[in-house]
Amino acid sequence: MKFSQMFIPTTKETPSDATLPSHQFLIRAGFILQTGAGIYDYMPLGKIVLDKIRAVVKEEMDKSGANEVQFGFVTPLSFWEESGRATAMGAELLKFKDRKGMGFVLSPTNEEAVVNMVKNRITSYKDLPINLYQIYTKFRDEARPRFGLMRGREFLMKDAYSFHASHEDLVREFNLMEQTYKNVYNRLGLDYRVVSADSGAIGGSGSKEFMVLANSGEDTLVICPSCEYGANIEAAVRKPNKKEPLETVSLEKVKTPNCKTIAEVSDFLKADAFYSMKAVMKKAVYENSSEVVLFFVRGVDELEETKACNAVAALSLEDASEEEVKAAGLVPGYCGIIDLPENIKVFVDNELKEDNNLVCGANEENYHYKGVDLTSLQNLNFADLIAVQEGDTCSCCGGKLEYKKGIEAGHIFQLGTKYSQAMDAKFLDSNGKAQPFVMGCYGIGVSRLVAAVIEQNHDEKGCIWTKETAPFLVDIIVSNAKNEDELAEGMKIYNSLKASGVEVLIDDRIQQRFGFKMSDFELIGFPYAVVVGKKLQDGLVEVVDRKTLEKTEIKVDEVTNYLLEKLK
Amino acid sequence: MKFSQMFIPTTKETPSDATLPSHQFLIRAGFILQTGAGIYDYMPLGKIVLDKIRAVVKEEMDKSGANEVQFGFVTPLSFWEESGRATAMGAELLKFKDRKGMGFVLSPTNEEAVVNMVKNRITSYKDLPINLYQIYTKFRDEARPRFGLMRGREFLMKDAYSFHASHEDLVREFNLMEQTYKNVYNRLGLDYRVVSADSGAIGGSGSKEFMVLANSGEDTLVICPSCEYGANIEAAVRKPNKKEPLETVSLEKVKTPNCKTIAEVSDFLKADAFYSMKAVMKKAVYENSSEVVLFFVRGVDELEETKACNAVAALSLEDASEEEVKAAGLVPGYCGIIDLPENIKVFVDNELKEDNNLVCGANEENYHYKGVDLTSLQNLNFADLIAVQEGDTCSCCGGKLEYKKGIEAGHIFQLGTKYSQAMDAKFLDSNGKAQPFVMGCYGIGVSRLVAAVIEQNHDEKGCIWTKETAPFLVDIIVSNAKNEDELAEGMKIYNSLKASGVEVLIDDRIQQRFGFKMSDFELIGFPYAVVVGKKLQDGLVEVVDRKTLEKTEIKVDEVTNYLLEKLK
Repeated sequence: MKFSQMFIPTTKETPSDATLPSHQFLIRAGFILQTGAGIYDYMPLGKIVLDKIRAVVKEEMDKSGANEVQFGFVTPLSFWEESGRATAMGAELLKFKDRKGMGFVLSPTNEEAVVNMVKNRITSYKDLPINLYQIYTKFRDEARPRFGLMRGREFLMKDAYSFHASHEDLVREFNLMEQTYKNVYNRLGLDYRVVSADSGAIGGSGSKEFMVLANSGEDTLVICPSCEYGANIEAAVRKPNKKEPLETVSLEKVKTPNCKTIAEVSDFLKADAFYSMKAVMKKAVYENSSEVVLFFVRGVDELEETKACNAVAALSLEDASEEEVKAAGLVPGYCGIIDLPENIKVFVDNELKEDNNLVCGANEENYHYKGVDLTSLQNLNFADLIAVQEGDTCSCCGGKLEYKKGIEAGHIFQLGTKYSQAMDAKFLDSNGKAQPFVMGCYGIGVSRLVAAVIEQNHDEKGCIWTKETAPFLVDIIVSNAKNEDELAEGMKIYNSLKASGVEVLIDDRIQQRFGFKMSDFELIGFPYAVVVGKKLQDGLVEVVDRKTLEKTEIKVDEVTNYLLEKLK
Repeated sequence: MKFSQMFIPTTKETPSDATLPSHQFLIRAGFILQTGAGIYDYMPLGKIVLDKIRAVVKEEMDKSGANEVQFGFVTPLSFWEESGRATAMGAELLKFKDRKGMGFVLSPTNEEAVVNMVKNRITSYKDLPINLYQIYTKFRDEARPRFGLMRGREFLMKDAYSFHASHEDLVREFNLMEQTYKNVYNRLGLDYRVVSADSGAIGGSGSKEFMVLANSGEDTLVICPSCEYGANIEAAVRKPNKKEPLETVSLEKVKTPNCKTIAEVSDFLKADAFYSMKAVMKKAVYENSSEVVLFFVRGVDELEETKACNAVAALSLEDASEEEVKAAGLVPGYCGIIDLPENIKVFVDNELKEDNNLVCGANEENYHYKGVDLTSLQNLNFADLIAVQEGDTCSCCGGKLEYKKGIEAGHIFQLGTKYSQAMDAKFLDSNGKAQPFVMGCYGIGVSRLVAAVIEQNHDEKGCIWTKETAPFLVDIIVSNAKNEDELAEGMKIYNSLKASGVEVLIDDRIQQRFGFKMSDFELIGFPYAVVVGKKLQDGLVEVVDRKTLEKTEIKVDEVTNYLLEKLK
């Protein structure tokens, strides 16, 4: 393509709300354009990148044997009522009525639609397994759309859904999908980690996330540098922290004036904070109600909110207001597990299960208990509630765990029968008995990957596309397009590269100066530029490597082969 | 692909609302699935066909030099308020509010979005022309979605928008698009006509439609078999019907008891109906009002409603009720152009302009006028109002015009400055003066083409795909897949065809009998089947041509070459 015939509106202006490099550069370099909160148009370069990523995803999915389909983006609300998600998904699910008053939904995901497709069309175990996928538009009415393509409302997702006669077969497909996803991210040239994950609102049992590593990532990953272990902090585990057990002593209420924090209490009592209980009050929000819930972790630990939310099976956890805390009969700063008001839900972290001599609040202003023995208390709810810290011990190999920041670019789930049961979708097994389908589901954020590539590959001047994602691999910059020799030589190199199958652009713009074209090259981030300028008199052109910004003089006749070698 | 590993749920059941062959067969053959009124899922075979058609459209658009983009499917209502279409499009425009109460629209077309994209990004005539296109989802909340993919609510459209510095350059691109569209329909193997068209709600001046010929088409085309002329009846013209002019006589009111129709009056007066005026009363509906309007055509002609609607610049025409007619002061059966109530709008067909001795109603029960001289009346509105009839004379070549039925599969418009002016989108011309962009727009109904191919290519057994649109070109039917020889030979042919680049499917299903597989082949409509059955013992297989259903015995070793020859 000729630059002069493409619509590539670059600009120096950075949108005021764009904090991430990918957001800034994709807009400045003319890839995307915002039309509403979380809604973007793709301009020609952006569309090429989106399609390249889509093509890689499609090729790998096809290779895995999955069948491509396409669900209506607009789906009947009745599907969502059947599965229970019409209300469970809250305001993120965009609902509307058509001209006849029928309820519809803009699909944020398609478990319901795929079950509707397969139900009564696959009736025998002989027709299983099957994996149906699509790469199609999604809409989530996010409360705070932000970060450009990273967290948009309208976005492109690859979603796949597999159907099985048994859990074993689901696990086989789940592993195949993990490998398929690795192939995708490897081909795209991304540095990523596969981590254990929380299953969230989709439901089901096992799940793994594919995290593109980037400092701007919203997710915290717990990684072991000594082994393969990796998990989203929401699902991360560690080898339990242990210290010498203390002797059991009798329960004693002690005055602890103005000691509200773990540090203050430990100082005052000259006790090790490890042997204390930290109380965290939260408001658990359910579909039609809410309540204040109390979580206890060890004094030196922190509560992991997603784990806490899962423990109490709430839709979300919010901070409880002072009034709500008081109404629940709790005393902020002095909450403890003894003498609690009745009916309040309490969850205790697993690692405290065998502790027999702990300090905790007395549910009374200025008082704590010493010698709390959890092994003697009845009917306690234990769960994994702690946020793994950097330096904690890997439960797999004993290594020291580290944090990384990641962008969630893929997520695979072992769904089980949650949706097939809710929608009464069954097949006849080999004994002729009707069984609900065992399902898996598998997502890749295709448009998010456009941004993720740039989060991982940019410098202060602009984008640096990987070879598999670049809109064009080579940008031939004709320094002065009014100079006929330069333009002719540029076109010669252009045609030669094109004939060799290289995706190449020629910046033949007459009204722009060399410096402007070079800035556009750096901002847009094609892997290589060939500068055809004054040195042409000596038979030379300059090849610029966008990643290193290194410039190499090459004989005109050798530049095609030089680049073909580089692009291998 | 193996049939056993694809999700192809064929069925014998025809949906009760499916009247068109494409609607029936696409559902029965497992291509599509209805989820709501006018909303369809694509199953694997349907998705392949959709993508094949999409790919042809993309290739030809790219070849024309257009740039592919993608607009948000969800667009801000504010765009539509700016252009005035928020109300002008009526209930077809699906509007909704997001969680924050902001108004949005599901895009039915994207003139507003493209002007928003180009505005302030192209500022000089030096950066023109540009043609931006997308192939993306659209939604129109049709009052009566029907005919399967033919008139859905959610559908896939290719929409392109070009920007020019002059009308001459727009005409150049318009012609380029006409050729591009012809390339598309030719490649898809369709029998079609390019016809002059009414511009409808999109607005603008010249427009052409691309009509796939099919008996089930909703549009009536007027075609000249002797020359290139073709037009939608809504825009069709003819050589004016002429007869000897009569002598001018004086106006005379005559009693015509109970003569309400043209035939009755002509009979009674023993006059040629050619020299009479036929009155048609309609209610013209505007954005915020409506009124009864009177149209006159020659007694032997019929009113063309779209032409009439355009003449009065209404949103639509409806039948006027008896009360509305009476309230307007009109006398049904006796409406004429003399002694009309004041303030009533009247339009007269162009072909009556020079008539000087006509019969028409007297606006009084049981009376008509004779000797009406239109050349003597002042301030009449003349317009082209007539529906061209079969047998009328072609205005280009004098041939006899014929009717055909067609499916609108594409439409190209010379928009002009309607949208650039409404949205204040300007560029600086070569004199440094700000001018609104001159625009064209160009649409292809991509998902509608899936149905159009079948409307034109089917028989009573099912679909007959053209080579460019078929999901697979060859279906290898292994008659008895439990027979190892048959299966092995089938796989050999399969691999041989695949290695030759042929898209091939092998029906390796174990539980299905031969007859079932053959019915599926006929219903689905792959161009060729290879039956591997009992004759294998003699070294023979049978090739079935889906179009003719002819069966040819071929030596096993020659079947690949035989098919490659056929598929050339």
